[in-house]
Amino acid sequence: MAHTVGQIAAALNAEALGDTELLIEKVAEPASATEDDLALLTNPKFADGLAKGSARVALLWPGADWQTLGLKAAIIAPRGRYAMAALTRMMDPGQGFAQGIHPTAIIDDTAELGENVALGPFVVVGPRARVGANSVIGPYCHIGMEASVGPDAFLRDHVSIGARVTIGARFISQPGARIGADGMSFVTPEASGVEKARESLGDQGELVSQSWTRIHSLGAVTIGDDVEIGANTCIDYGTIRDTVVGSGTKIDNQCHVAHNVTIGTDCLFAGMVGIAGSTKIGNNVVMGGQVGVTDNTTIGDNVIAGGGAKILSKVPAGQVVLGYPAVKMDTHLDMYKALRRLPRTLAQLKNRQKSVSKDGSND
Amino acid sequence: MAHTVGQIAAALNAEALGDTELLIEKVAEPASATEDDLALLTNPKFADGLAKGSARVALLWPGADWQTLGLKAAIIAPRGRYAMAALTRMMDPGQGFAQGIHPTAIIDDTAELGENVALGPFVVVGPRARVGANSVIGPYCHIGMEASVGPDAFLRDHVSIGARVTIGARFISQPGARIGADGMSFVTPEASGVEKARESLGDQGELVSQSWTRIHSLGAVTIGDDVEIGANTCIDYGTIRDTVVGSGTKIDNQCHVAHNVTIGTDCLFAGMVGIAGSTKIGNNVVMGGQVGVTDNTTIGDNVIAGGGAKILSKVPAGQVVLGYPAVKMDTHLDMYKALRRLPRTLAQLKNRQKSVSKDGSND
Amino acid sequence: MAHTVGQIAAALNAEALGDTELLIEKVAEPASATEDDLALLTNPKFADGLAKGSARVALLWPGADWQTLGLKAAIIAPRGRYAMAALTRMMDPGQGFAQGIHPTAIIDDTAELGENVALGPFVVVGPRARVGANSVIGPYCHIGMEASVGPDAFLRDHVSIGARVTIGARFISQPGARIGADGMSFVTPEASGVEKARESLGDQGELVSQSWTRIHSLGAVTIGDDVEIGANTCIDYGTIRDTVVGSGTKIDNQCHVAHNVTIGTDCLFAGMVGIAGSTKIGNNVVMGGQVGVTDNTTIGDNVIAGGGAKILSKVPAGQVVLGYPAVKMDTHLDMYKALRRLPRTLAQLKNRQKSVSKDGSND
Repeated sequence: MAHTVGQIAAALNAEALGDTELLIEKVAEPASATEDDLALLTNPKFADGLAKGSARVALLWPGADWQTLGLKAAIIAPRGRYAMAALTRMMDPGQGFAQGIHPTAIIDDTAELGENVALGPFVVVGPRARVGANSVIGPYCHIGMEASVGPDAFLRDHVSIGARVTIGARFISQPGARIGADGMSFVTPEASGVEKARESLGDQGELVSQSWTRIHSLGAVTIGDDVEIGANTCIDYGTIRDTVVGSGTKIDNQCHVAHNVTIGTDCLFAGMVGIAGSTKIGNNVVMGGQVGVTDNTTIGDNVIAGGGAKILSKVPAGQVVLGYPAVKMDTHLDMYKALRRLPRTLAQLKNRQKSVSKDGSND
Repeated sequence: MAHTVGQIAAALNAEALGDTELLIEKVAEPASATEDDLALLTNPKFADGLAKGSARVALLWPGADWQTLGLKAAIIAPRGRYAMAALTRMMDPGQGFAQGIHPTAIIDDTAELGENVALGPFVVVGPRARVGANSVIGPYCHIGMEASVGPDAFLRDHVSIGARVTIGARFISQPGARIGADGMSFVTPEASGVEKARESLGDQGELVSQSWTRIHSLGAVTIGDDVEIGANTCIDYGTIRDTVVGSGTKIDNQCHVAHNVTIGTDCLFAGMVGIAGSTKIGNNVVMGGQVGVTDNTTIGDNVIAGGGAKILSKVPAGQVVLGYPAVKMDTHLDMYKALRRLPRTLAQLKNRQKSVSKDGSND
Repeated sequence: MAHTVGQIAAALNAEALGDTELLIEKVAEPASATEDDLALLTNPKFADGLAKGSARVALLWPGADWQTLGLKAAIIAPRGRYAMAALTRMMDPGQGFAQGIHPTAIIDDTAELGENVALGPFVVVGPRARVGANSVIGPYCHIGMEASVGPDAFLRDHVSIGARVTIGARFISQPGARIGADGMSFVTPEASGVEKARESLGDQGELVSQSWTRIHSLGAVTIGDDVEIGANTCIDYGTIRDTVVGSGTKIDNQCHVAHNVTIGTDCLFAGMVGIAGSTKIGNNVVMGGQVGVTDNTTIGDNVIAGGGAKILSKVPAGQVVLGYPAVKMDTHLDMYKALRRLPRTLAQLKNRQKSVSKDGSND
């Protein structure tokens, strides 16, 4: 799948300089690039690496002097990181999943497959399920009863789409994602210790041992267009209404989205984020790795939560938060700096007190 | 699957008022309910929503005036949340898994299946494994050698039951759960830095590079009756004895229960809880999302750990804990309030000190 | 699979005492050991347990008096925990996976299988993939296009090996691991709020709503020899170069290793550890459960991170860290002790201030 420098520049909407007919086989970091590679060098800081490799062509930052760098050709990207999107899409070797329906796939008679759908080995498509046109469904994917996926979906292997889940266009799922597990909702005959501790902020009253009775999930999951879900990430059914993931939202590996959660559009969650039940997340919200959000709260639009933040209450739109409990980042930094100084401060106070009381004893 | 208002009330052991012959198709939130839905309105706070929808029947709180609310019938639930259990069980459309043994299922000659067992597509049941009567085993589930599940189990898709695992009656597993992965137990020829740092509270002594040798898991996993395990949750084998999950315990998605852990009865773990090796959890323990518990410790009965708590030492029965490290909730709140005030306090101290030393320089 | 006491001692390179011809069926804890079991008693603290069981043979600590303990034979292990490695390897009943190629396995014509490879039911081996000699691949494992595993690999069930992943000798994977999911890498047309907040430490400037464009993963994953990966753990592809896991490294369940991460040799990660993109981890690094490491940072050799630590910046070699943000363990303990005392200290300060200002008012 070689491309000329000119073709690549055109796909990136970028400027090509030098010998634009040179053929590029793949993309590489400068130091390990061969003669047939396009070296990625969008930051002048790493220009030294070029000499260690054999690249003849590089993707460079605006204003870079490609000839002085010893190159035969260059592509100039105004925003290198953004150019990476088009470049990597063009050069992605993919998973090599075959076209068509694999003979081991099991398709219910009442299921509907769009045109040009590819089903891999051991795929199961349940009753009245629908797979939109041009979707590629990898090995061992299960599309449950009355679920709907696509068009133009790409599911890697071992993905679970539960019954009644609805997913929009251009959905991408990494391996092992579980869309539509039952919500974790249990209730005790009498008010439980948790209910009482929440009301009293910590006192669960008399301890009573009760068993949990299951609340079934009657809602499903609705996912918009252009959503991507990471490997082994789980999204639970809603209890009555659907759990919702808005269009354009991207969720990384090993995340957990509980029942009734509503996530807005164009959000970005890094790995291991957990959102507890019935919480509402706005649009364009970004969460770092291992962030947790408590149940029944609201996160405003454009909130950014730093890695490891545990959000235990409402966050207004636009805030950048960090910590456990998560607070505004500058508040967190002030608290942390003060805490860092605290052992010394306490020692000083103690010394001063001692000298004061010594003075006192001299009275 | 329509039911009359009277039938539903009877199933809920609740009072039916008005036209009890009205047919209900499904359950809905008040604002989105159609004429054929039962609106859920167990909290007067949300009564306004009713006007936005078209419900003729609602599940209401005790004392609610259904006629003034404009309804044709009502069901009165003394504890609405508890009524949800029976109601949702009755109305659950389920996964639609077929009855019987799918022709692609692979059953070892020495395996034993109870009466009326359903095995989905591509299920594998290993040597001497047993599946109890009326169990439903979804697509791609693997029941390992000499494992035992059920009766009345319900396994969604892609579930792993490792060799020698024993699971009681009415087990429910969400997709992708792994019961019986090997424990993570490794040892170095000489004492490792971790062993030394644990003893010295932080000093690992001379740094020595050693490789890890595997301790195999000879124990299995024993799970009681009425247990539910969430999507992609993992429970490891014990090393010598079994890892144990007591009857009635419910574990949410993406949890991790390490080797030799013992969990009591009727516990409830929210998503992403992790319990490290050989820790013992009492009965009726509740853990919020992303809680972590260190290894070789003991958590008493009826402990409640708030979301994100990291439990690094023993917790006595009945305590409500929060924080990292987790402490009693009121202690945590005191510490947190003090920390919140700390930057200001330190600034005041500094000012006062300055003024004191100024005074002093006037001596 | 019974062994004599003498045979076991020989395998452990340990000393056998007493009737070394006694046959041992399995290993047990002292209190539950039967006559045919080897009781594990490497710590004198637990010697009382022996009387509760019926063991005739035990694995004992150096210097133990086996005859006084009422045993007929004993094996003396200088380092009991290390002896467990050889002992459990010898006694492991395993998963009972069948030898040979299961008839339901699907092997691409261009794939290469080494001698004596076992493929379980419903295994898929993709185009130009390679499985090394003596490897055992469990049910539902997917070996992607041009991936390479083994020799002597052992994969449990439901494991995903993505296209182009390279894995060395003696690889062990627990169920549901995902090696080679796409990296989570997205970019906005203009600088995003996250990019701005990182530069300003918390200020994302004017809020702009943008959609995310995908950066595809052109790199793969390279895993060394003697690596073990836990259940449902995910390791993402690199963007341009490969994500790397060094030889001898062991990673527990539910971990997340993001794109471009490099992990050294002989590391040990407990459950639920998350490593964000492009971070470099040294050799012999040990991480406790639920540890998180931020992106683009460096962790030196022999670092130990305690459970729940969130590492937000570079850690020098040999440090033992704890906390959020993670700091040196003794610094953490000092801060924590001071924080623990803080509410009382603030109350005292307030009292003193009051008495000072009272004194002042008497002026």
